[in-house]
Amino acid sequence: MPQASSRPTNDHGHASLAERFAATRQLTESLLEPLSEADATIQSMEDASPAKWHAAHTTWFWETFLLRDHAPGYRLHDERWPFLFNSYYEAEGERILRRNRGLLTRPTLAEVLDWRAHVDDAMQALMDDPCHADLIELGIAHEQQHIELLLTDIKHALSKNPLGPAMWDRAPAVPATQDDGWIEHPGGIAKIGHQGDGFAFDNEGPAHRVLLEPFALSRRLVTNGEWDAFIADGGYSDHRLWLSDAWAWLERCTITAPLYWRGDEQFTHAGWQPRDPDAPVSHISYYEADAFAAWAGCRLPTEFEWEAVARGQDAADTAQRFSAGAGNQLDAAAPPQPVGTGELFGDVWQFTRSGYLPYPRFQPAEGAVGEYNGKFMAGQWVLKGASCATVRGHSRASYRNFFYPQQRWQFTGLRLAKDV
Amino acid sequence: MPQASSRPTNDHGHASLAERFAATRQLTESLLEPLSEADATIQSMEDASPAKWHAAHTTWFWETFLLRDHAPGYRLHDERWPFLFNSYYEAEGERILRRNRGLLTRPTLAEVLDWRAHVDDAMQALMDDPCHADLIELGIAHEQQHIELLLTDIKHALSKNPLGPAMWDRAPAVPATQDDGWIEHPGGIAKIGHQGDGFAFDNEGPAHRVLLEPFALSRRLVTNGEWDAFIADGGYSDHRLWLSDAWAWLERCTITAPLYWRGDEQFTHAGWQPRDPDAPVSHISYYEADAFAAWAGCRLPTEFEWEAVARGQDAADTAQRFSAGAGNQLDAAAPPQPVGTGELFGDVWQFTRSGYLPYPRFQPAEGAVGEYNGKFMAGQWVLKGASCATVRGHSRASYRNFFYPQQRWQFTGLRLAKDV
Amino acid sequence: MPQASSRPTNDHGHASLAERFAATRQLTESLLEPLSEADATIQSMEDASPAKWHAAHTTWFWETFLLRDHAPGYRLHDERWPFLFNSYYEAEGERILRRNRGLLTRPTLAEVLDWRAHVDDAMQALMDDPCHADLIELGIAHEQQHIELLLTDIKHALSKNPLGPAMWDRAPAVPATQDDGWIEHPGGIAKIGHQGDGFAFDNEGPAHRVLLEPFALSRRLVTNGEWDAFIADGGYSDHRLWLSDAWAWLERCTITAPLYWRGDEQFTHAGWQPRDPDAPVSHISYYEADAFAAWAGCRLPTEFEWEAVARGQDAADTAQRFSAGAGNQLDAAAPPQPVGTGELFGDVWQFTRSGYLPYPRFQPAEGAVGEYNGKFMAGQWVLKGASCATVRGHSRASYRNFFYPQQRWQFTGLRLAKDV
Amino acid sequence: MPQASSRPTNDHGHASLAERFAATRQLTESLLEPLSEADATIQSMEDASPAKWHAAHTTWFWETFLLRDHAPGYRLHDERWPFLFNSYYEAEGERILRRNRGLLTRPTLAEVLDWRAHVDDAMQALMDDPCHADLIELGIAHEQQHIELLLTDIKHALSKNPLGPAMWDRAPAVPATQDDGWIEHPGGIAKIGHQGDGFAFDNEGPAHRVLLEPFALSRRLVTNGEWDAFIADGGYSDHRLWLSDAWAWLERCTITAPLYWRGDEQFTHAGWQPRDPDAPVSHISYYEADAFAAWAGCRLPTEFEWEAVARGQDAADTAQRFSAGAGNQLDAAAPPQPVGTGELFGDVWQFTRSGYLPYPRFQPAEGAVGEYNGKFMAGQWVLKGASCATVRGHSRASYRNFFYPQQRWQFTGLRLAKDV
Repeated sequence: MPQASSRPTNDHGHASLAERFAATRQLTESLLEPLSEADATIQSMEDASPAKWHAAHTTWFWETFLLRDHAPGYRLHDERWPFLFNSYYEAEGERILRRNRGLLTRPTLAEVLDWRAHVDDAMQALMDDPCHADLIELGIAHEQQHIELLLTDIKHALSKNPLGPAMWDRAPAVPATQDDGWIEHPGGIAKIGHQGDGFAFDNEGPAHRVLLEPFALSRRLVTNGEWDAFIADGGYSDHRLWLSDAWAWLERCTITAPLYWRGDEQFTHAGWQPRDPDAPVSHISYYEADAFAAWAGCRLPTEFEWEAVARGQDAADTAQRFSAGAGNQLDAAAPPQPVGTGELFGDVWQFTRSGYLPYPRFQPAEGAVGEYNGKFMAGQWVLKGASCATVRGHSRASYRNFFYPQQRWQFTGLRLAKDV
Repeated sequence: MPQASSRPTNDHGHASLAERFAATRQLTESLLEPLSEADATIQSMEDASPAKWHAAHTTWFWETFLLRDHAPGYRLHDERWPFLFNSYYEAEGERILRRNRGLLTRPTLAEVLDWRAHVDDAMQALMDDPCHADLIELGIAHEQQHIELLLTDIKHALSKNPLGPAMWDRAPAVPATQDDGWIEHPGGIAKIGHQGDGFAFDNEGPAHRVLLEPFALSRRLVTNGEWDAFIADGGYSDHRLWLSDAWAWLERCTITAPLYWRGDEQFTHAGWQPRDPDAPVSHISYYEADAFAAWAGCRLPTEFEWEAVARGQDAADTAQRFSAGAGNQLDAAAPPQPVGTGELFGDVWQFTRSGYLPYPRFQPAEGAVGEYNGKFMAGQWVLKGASCATVRGHSRASYRNFFYPQQRWQFTGLRLAKDV
Repeated sequence: MPQASSRPTNDHGHASLAERFAATRQLTESLLEPLSEADATIQSMEDASPAKWHAAHTTWFWETFLLRDHAPGYRLHDERWPFLFNSYYEAEGERILRRNRGLLTRPTLAEVLDWRAHVDDAMQALMDDPCHADLIELGIAHEQQHIELLLTDIKHALSKNPLGPAMWDRAPAVPATQDDGWIEHPGGIAKIGHQGDGFAFDNEGPAHRVLLEPFALSRRLVTNGEWDAFIADGGYSDHRLWLSDAWAWLERCTITAPLYWRGDEQFTHAGWQPRDPDAPVSHISYYEADAFAAWAGCRLPTEFEWEAVARGQDAADTAQRFSAGAGNQLDAAAPPQPVGTGELFGDVWQFTRSGYLPYPRFQPAEGAVGEYNGKFMAGQWVLKGASCATVRGHSRASYRNFFYPQQRWQFTGLRLAKDV
Repeated sequence: MPQASSRPTNDHGHASLAERFAATRQLTESLLEPLSEADATIQSMEDASPAKWHAAHTTWFWETFLLRDHAPGYRLHDERWPFLFNSYYEAEGERILRRNRGLLTRPTLAEVLDWRAHVDDAMQALMDDPCHADLIELGIAHEQQHIELLLTDIKHALSKNPLGPAMWDRAPAVPATQDDGWIEHPGGIAKIGHQGDGFAFDNEGPAHRVLLEPFALSRRLVTNGEWDAFIADGGYSDHRLWLSDAWAWLERCTITAPLYWRGDEQFTHAGWQPRDPDAPVSHISYYEADAFAAWAGCRLPTEFEWEAVARGQDAADTAQRFSAGAGNQLDAAAPPQPVGTGELFGDVWQFTRSGYLPYPRFQPAEGAVGEYNGKFMAGQWVLKGASCATVRGHSRASYRNFFYPQQRWQFTGLRLAKDV
């Protein structure tokens, strides 16, 4: 089991870079503890990767882009491993087929953990040189992303076992009742994208202005109970609610409910659990989110509307400014599960109706690191916020998560918007 | 062969609704003339439909949404045919699988032409009632769209025949040399979407304001010769130029050139013809357009930038206002083929980097007609302008064409943009 | 409509080679008469070919193996056509993909018919030279096979049209009641395979001896009525009756009845017709035949058992010798449809439990003609007899028809066997 | 590592049933020892199963068909596990999808080993009751089959790891040179199938007579060196050598060599090893075996010819009778790898040209056990002999192994035959 502390994980606002590096590395490892070597090795679908692979790939990232490129005299721990643990960086050469990641029983988990320790040691020498700080920030953010993926990937793998195994014995937290109501926004010119000095991914910039019409954003996330009503009202069989691609997907895959639903239960990191109607719905696709919004007589927000609300940028003095560090985000001591906190961040990533496209004047970085975001700007949708599986401190108002419209294995949900 | 007139087809600015109805119907039929019954029946891929099917489907549209719904006492010509000729209107009930459209040897082409005449006659009674004018405008626009699809679909079908048959004996027009240079735009707030009283599709509205950064749009379309240079420079084998989905598509489908290229030739409605380096490149996918733009150190325009230029909305007195009726558009007397006219409209549909998404406050129409556009707003890209196969008068500055990023069988090309 | 004669077609026991050549060629053409050019062009699945393609491919066979190879000075009618109309002869070079045969709107049907006439004329010069007789016999048998395929392929194509078009206006013949009972055979050594001087395919030889156990073969074919009982008894949902591959096929393709069944009707060359319970069942797969036999407490015969009965080879003086020219075989004046005649040949091809494998000491012929049969000896099953769509005179006791176990578009049925 | 004894494994001619049960169970477990839990869990293709799954499935067989059905008061070790470890017995109810077997990280390997011990204990009570002897013999034979599959499945899984991990450190044995020459057989009536009192699978009977023509069978297996010559002679690119289905498979899968070949090496249970030209070729498909035989001017034997030679049934006094217990069969102390011993059994399973079909008067057993063999009698080919991974004592002259014609992951090879 991961560490039993209930203190929010990784909430180190004033921690040094070295401290944050160490905390992130340790967090990855703590999540491997409840897993057997077999659990950590298997791959349940092409979208998902083995937990051991995440532990190794993040280490490859440090070894490749920091140690190999910047640590004088560093020699690769094993020259054959980059082929195994490169994810998608074409510039870094050939790599194992994505769908074969689950066949890598060697190196063993123990060997990967040794590698991690070896790399962590070697990284110390680079920590104090400010010219590496940006790359180290990127590496930390990268490993935090893989921590979330590790959690959603292993959840998927465990869900395929008819025995319904649990990663945490402890039950998920009890959902609260969210406040109703709408956050109104008067529209106008909003400043969008990353601003200031902190770290951000390249896809969050450049900052630019966007013209918004007046709108309102729901104070709360759509709940399981509302989704039950959608189903009861025939939502999954009324073609008028669905995009054309969505309807074809729904028919081809026989979709009738969110992922991980079974009767009155849902699969969680604590195994099959009763499904609370007050908890935010999760594990839905863009297609489902869009259809639900149509059924509810509303729509999804744009990424710009969501960000404008998150920043509290409207003219009124009373504008609320939401904190990206608040809400239900990853606590390694308990199974991640949405509860509904009334915060803008946390619980579930929230679909927007914005396609994942480059901002004006966007330029990918040079070199292999430039493959980080830009090349995925086709066919995906932007999600905002953070989820119960996100490392606290990882997200921010300008953060752009993105997935294909049929993908459901992340903690994805929705917050309605409407025109005013 | 279609009528030999070289007068621009369907250019009836002041024609009455009835005249435009008749001209559109006649144009469809004139394009069937050079085809044998077999030519008009086959379907060469799921994206394409048989020419006879287009002739019948457009007739179904008139019969269903005008005659059945609004002509008192009208009886369906054949009650079994709506099952055959409904395209995708879920609200209109079951229909034949799209991929089976090429198996419909009955009704015969002669029977379909009889049906067309029957429906045309019955439509006369509705022409003078102004309460049907909007639907009739929609029907004309709908049939014009199918005229373009008929042309691109039969081109694809003929291209699959190793004999390389021609639909027109006459060779395509000789390409011109386009002017170089850029149209600069200062940015600012642009009014986007359909404005005024004329007909427009629902997806062109509502009109709204968009904030633009300064940019420039090329005066000319990218040419075959430039594409040759892109290929010669290894464009199709340099992963850095390609979106991730694009690279996977290119490898899976072994894409190394635009569709219809073979050595120094290209397939046209006049059969295999030498490929002129000065002619605008056509039959490329979004993926290829995006990669070319990256290679050229430019980018694709957004749909808003393109429209702003088309409207000549910048503050300068000298702003050029482009005419949607100008340029190389459909002339039924000659094979449609890009030549390069220096106009913004015509030759090829031009890819933008804008996802096909709803405009703010967009609402689909009620009823089956509401399935016209909105349900396709996922995974497709907006194209602007018009092509050499577009009925003159069909397009306009706010017109939004849309296709999936891998589709290439339309007359699709690109016009570069850049930040200034 | 084909010629209205009710005389058995092509029953020319003592006709000369030239007469039989002419009759076969004419029969192909007579079957094209009721088809429109579109009917003759389309291809409804990869297993099937267009009617025009059959007319052309058989002509290619004559032109290639007789005229090109043996007629001095003969020039190909069109040098581009072999690429279009070679079926599977690797030795004859590249050819169009099988699944694209339905896209060949050119050459037109009229052009193909001209080619047929041209080749027929040229063939006259080879008719009297006995050194070509064997190849001409093969060509006749080859064209007869394609006549049957033309009929079953166009039936499939027409069946895909929701309008249910008919190729013959005339209704199929009325089924008779077949005699019950079993033909007993004492077993022993049987002489199997082609014997004597007449024409046979290479796969029918060499003649050899096979040791049989005592068995009995049903006097009658299984009927639609019996198949109804099989269905009513849950035959399609009882896994115990089905081979493992069969069960997977049945589940994957949702098979619940023979091909062309719909309620109490079945699709015929005369359109949808009531299904007579006394008529032999047809359009079943090997998988279904095998399951039915298991349900009936019987089994399928081996090809050797069937042939031994057909030859009347048992020792008893009273042994019945069945005539391969008897029974319900192709009559071009009426729609082919099983009726049940009590003969061993005709109505439907009868599945055996024998894999289609080479006989001892089998050697394929030299050259391209050697690709005729031998290379298909894997994964297929032997069928014996003849069907209502077989040219009378084409089949014989040693004839080995063969299909994959899931194929159903031929007139395939079954005759039960049992051990005694 | 498995036990280091070099004594032939499981060679217990006079061992009691209980001793053979214990030895078989122990052998399975000894093969798990060199595997990590992850090694034992993964599944590298749908044809293969995880090693742990084999260990569990064999235990399920004992628990279901012996303990549950025949041990009074026995309670299932875990009621949820039959769903996980039933392979294909439809009569035993629903089961996990075959392709998902590699996702079962629970139960753990330790839990499965506990289950094995539990079942082994409970089985002792049934050992002395002769009415269970037949089922116990079947269970032993069943587990022996899975021992061979476990070995070939884990070999495939390890081969997919770019690191090329070894299951045995010890190198494979050094190949010998086999004697040349042919075993001639005069033909005549052979008695085929299982005869006598010993255990045999249902598919080996009933014994029956088959008439053979004179033939000869090679004294030796085809070697790697001969296969190199086949490749060098263009064997994989000469369509004339290949069955039609084979050629399509070869083109679709880009087959140019046996499975596990890479340059001059081959993958073995001892990792990548130099390929000895004198060793028998292995890991070939039926398609390849058939093409090689054609290239060599020979053919594959029928299963009847092979069995007749194995029995030494010809009339001559000097007839050699081959021992099914001789040759290179499984020795758990060393990696299984063909060496060439001159025996008829061992090294590789030998393809025959006989389809896997029922013998005359074959009847499957009643109940679920009846699903053991009969339902696979479609589309597969018979292989005779035994391989280096076969438990010694498992095979016999009448033994019929069977696989689909494209499968290559077993130790499959060939011995030529010819007509005399």
